[in-house]
Amino acid sequence: MPHFHLRPLNQSLAAAIQYKIDTKTKPLGALGQLEQLARQVALVQQTLTPKLQQPHMLVFAADHGIAAEGVSKYPQEVTYQMVLNFLSGGAAINVFCRQQGMALRIIDAGVKGSFADFPAVTDQKIAEGTRSFLREPAMTAAQCEQALEAGAQLAREVAATGCNVLGFGEMGIGNTSAATLLMHRLTGLPLADCLGRGTGLDDDQLAHKAAVLTAAAATHAAVSAPLEVLATFGGFEIAQMTGAMLAAAEAGMLLLIDGFIATAALLVTTKLYPAVLEYCVFGHQSEETGHRLLLGHLNARPLLSLGLRLGEGTGCALAYPLLQAAVSFLNEMASFESAGVSQAAPQPASAV
Amino acid sequence: MPHFHLRPLNQSLAAAIQYKIDTKTKPLGALGQLEQLARQVALVQQTLTPKLQQPHMLVFAADHGIAAEGVSKYPQEVTYQMVLNFLSGGAAINVFCRQQGMALRIIDAGVKGSFADFPAVTDQKIAEGTRSFLREPAMTAAQCEQALEAGAQLAREVAATGCNVLGFGEMGIGNTSAATLLMHRLTGLPLADCLGRGTGLDDDQLAHKAAVLTAAAATHAAVSAPLEVLATFGGFEIAQMTGAMLAAAEAGMLLLIDGFIATAALLVTTKLYPAVLEYCVFGHQSEETGHRLLLGHLNARPLLSLGLRLGEGTGCALAYPLLQAAVSFLNEMASFESAGVSQAAPQPASAV
Repeated sequence: MPHFHLRPLNQSLAAAIQYKIDTKTKPLGALGQLEQLARQVALVQQTLTPKLQQPHMLVFAADHGIAAEGVSKYPQEVTYQMVLNFLSGGAAINVFCRQQGMALRIIDAGVKGSFADFPAVTDQKIAEGTRSFLREPAMTAAQCEQALEAGAQLAREVAATGCNVLGFGEMGIGNTSAATLLMHRLTGLPLADCLGRGTGLDDDQLAHKAAVLTAAAATHAAVSAPLEVLATFGGFEIAQMTGAMLAAAEAGMLLLIDGFIATAALLVTTKLYPAVLEYCVFGHQSEETGHRLLLGHLNARPLLSLGLRLGEGTGCALAYPLLQAAVSFLNEMASFESAGVSQAAPQPASAV
Repeated sequence: MPHFHLRPLNQSLAAAIQYKIDTKTKPLGALGQLEQLARQVALVQQTLTPKLQQPHMLVFAADHGIAAEGVSKYPQEVTYQMVLNFLSGGAAINVFCRQQGMALRIIDAGVKGSFADFPAVTDQKIAEGTRSFLREPAMTAAQCEQALEAGAQLAREVAATGCNVLGFGEMGIGNTSAATLLMHRLTGLPLADCLGRGTGLDDDQLAHKAAVLTAAAATHAAVSAPLEVLATFGGFEIAQMTGAMLAAAEAGMLLLIDGFIATAALLVTTKLYPAVLEYCVFGHQSEETGHRLLLGHLNARPLLSLGLRLGEGTGCALAYPLLQAAVSFLNEMASFESAGVSQAAPQPASAV
C-alpha cells in the first residue's frame, strides 16, 4: 500500500473566513449550505480568496465478474459500449461536463475489450474485468495495489496541470453489487440496508441480487481489513478511485463525490485516512437505497437530491455550479460597510 | 383587474417527449427530477428541442408600512440601501446572475426614497411604501390594479426581447410579514404555520411579529377575495410580481420561482389563473417556516434545498443551471440506437 501525507485541515484561518462571510450584505447565515461550502473551500485552499481552477472529471470504467451472476438489468457489454458513448460525447456526463466547463477524462481501469484504437481513453487496465466474488476474491492483493497506484498517479498528473477540483465518476455493469458489499462489510450495516435496485431491477431481480450478495458475503465472512475488503469485493474502477482520492486530497484538491459507487470508494479511503473527508464535497444523494445511509455514516450532507441514479459523475457535475457560487459570493459580494447598508437592529423598533 | 389568456399546457407532444427521454443512453428514469423538468420545458415551449433564451431575473423592491411595527430585524432604510447595492453589483443576486449569464433588472415597485439619479432602476413606483396593514389596507384597489398592470407590462417588454425564461426575486424589509398573511388568508392554514423568522428574528422578536400579524389578521377578518387580500396585505413588489407572472405565463415563458415572498405572489396568481402553475419551476425551498408548507399547498417540488433564507431571487438563480442541464440532456444525449448501446435485459442472465 502506498503511503500518503494527509493531515486534517489547518484551521488557523477559520475565524477570518467566518468574519468575511458574516459581514457580507445578507442576514447572518442566510446563504445556508453555500456558507459551509465557502468555509470548506477557503480552508482547503488556505486562503480568504479561493479559486476553482481547471476542474476535471475522472470517469473510471471497469467490468465486474459478479455481473455474470445476473445482478444487473443490463448485459456486461454495456460497460464497453458506454465507454464508446463517452468518447463520442453522447452520455449524460459529457453533456453536463460541457455545460460546466469541466474537462472529462475516461479511464479504462479494467473493461472487458480493447480500446487500442481509441487514444482518448486513459489506459490503466488492470485486467479484463474482476473475477466473480461469489466464489473467489475479485482481485489479487497485487492487482489492488496496482490499481491504487494507477489512480494515485493519475490524480497527481491532473494536479500538475493546475487543476484544484476533481470530480469522481464511474461506469461498470455490476458495480452497485460491489459497492453494496464494501458498504456492508466496512460499516457493519445489514446487507439489506446496503442493497438497491441499481439500474432498475424489479422485485424478483432484486431478490436474486440479494441472494447472490448474501452468498458472497458468507463466502468471504472473515475478510475485514479495508484493503482486503477492497480486493475481495471491489472493482478496478473503485480501487483506482480510492487511490486517486487519496492523492488528490494529498495534493490539496477539492474532491467532488458522486453517487453510491464513488461514495463506496471514498468509504474505503476514509478507513485508510479519515482526514480525506475534509476535502470532500458531496454532489448528490442518489435514489440508490444504500446511498442515503452511507452518506449518513460519513456525516455527509449532499448538495443535491434530484432522484438521480445514473453514476458517471453526473451528480457532482450538476453540483459544480453550487461550488462556483460559494466561491463567487465569498470573493465578489460587498460587505455591509463597503456597500453602506445598515446592520440588523438588536431590538424591534416599536411595539404593537 | 386586467384579463390574461392562460390555458393549461397542450399535452399533444407528451408521448413523443417521453419517448425521446426514455431512449437516451441511461436507465429508465435515471435522471430523476431533471426528466420531469425536461418534459415541462418541452411542453411549455411545445417542441422536442427546447431552448433557453435570454434568461432574465426581475428583482422587485418595495417598502412596507408594517415595517414600522418592528416585525423585521433590519431598519426600513435597508430596502433602499440594498437597491443601491444591487446597482453597484455587490449583492448575492448580482454575483449569481453574473455566474449564470442571467440579465438582472431591478424594479422600484414602491421603495421609500428616490432613484432619480439611478437610471438603471426600472421606475414603477406606485408609492413610497405601503401603509401599515395593522390599521388599514396596505394599498387601495386602484394601486393594486396599477401594480398588476405595471408588472404585466414589464414582463411583456422582456418577452419582446426574446427572453423565454424569467426569474422572480424581491427585496423589501417587512415582506415576510406580508407574505405570511397572504398565505394564511389564501390557504386557510393557521397563522402560526405561515410565520417565520424572516431575516433572523430571535424568540422574543418572533413572538412580537406573531402578535402584530395576529392583530392585523383580526383587523381584516372579512377579507377573502384574492385581489382584495393582495391589496390588504400585499406589498407593491408582490403585486407587481403577480402581474408579471401572469403576463409571463401568457407569453409562454418559463417562470423561475424563488423563496417565500415570490411563492406568496404566485399563490395569489394561482387563485386568479390556476394554469399558471404549469409554467413554474421552483428553485429552492427556503428555511422560512411557511415556505415548505406553501410549496406543499401548491404541489410544488423545488430543485434545491440549501437552507437559504435571502430572497432576491437567489434560489432560482442558483437553480438555473439545473434547468439548463435538463434542456441539454434532452437535446444532446445520444439514444441507445444512435450510440449502439444494448438495452436492459428483461431477466437476469443467470441464477445464483
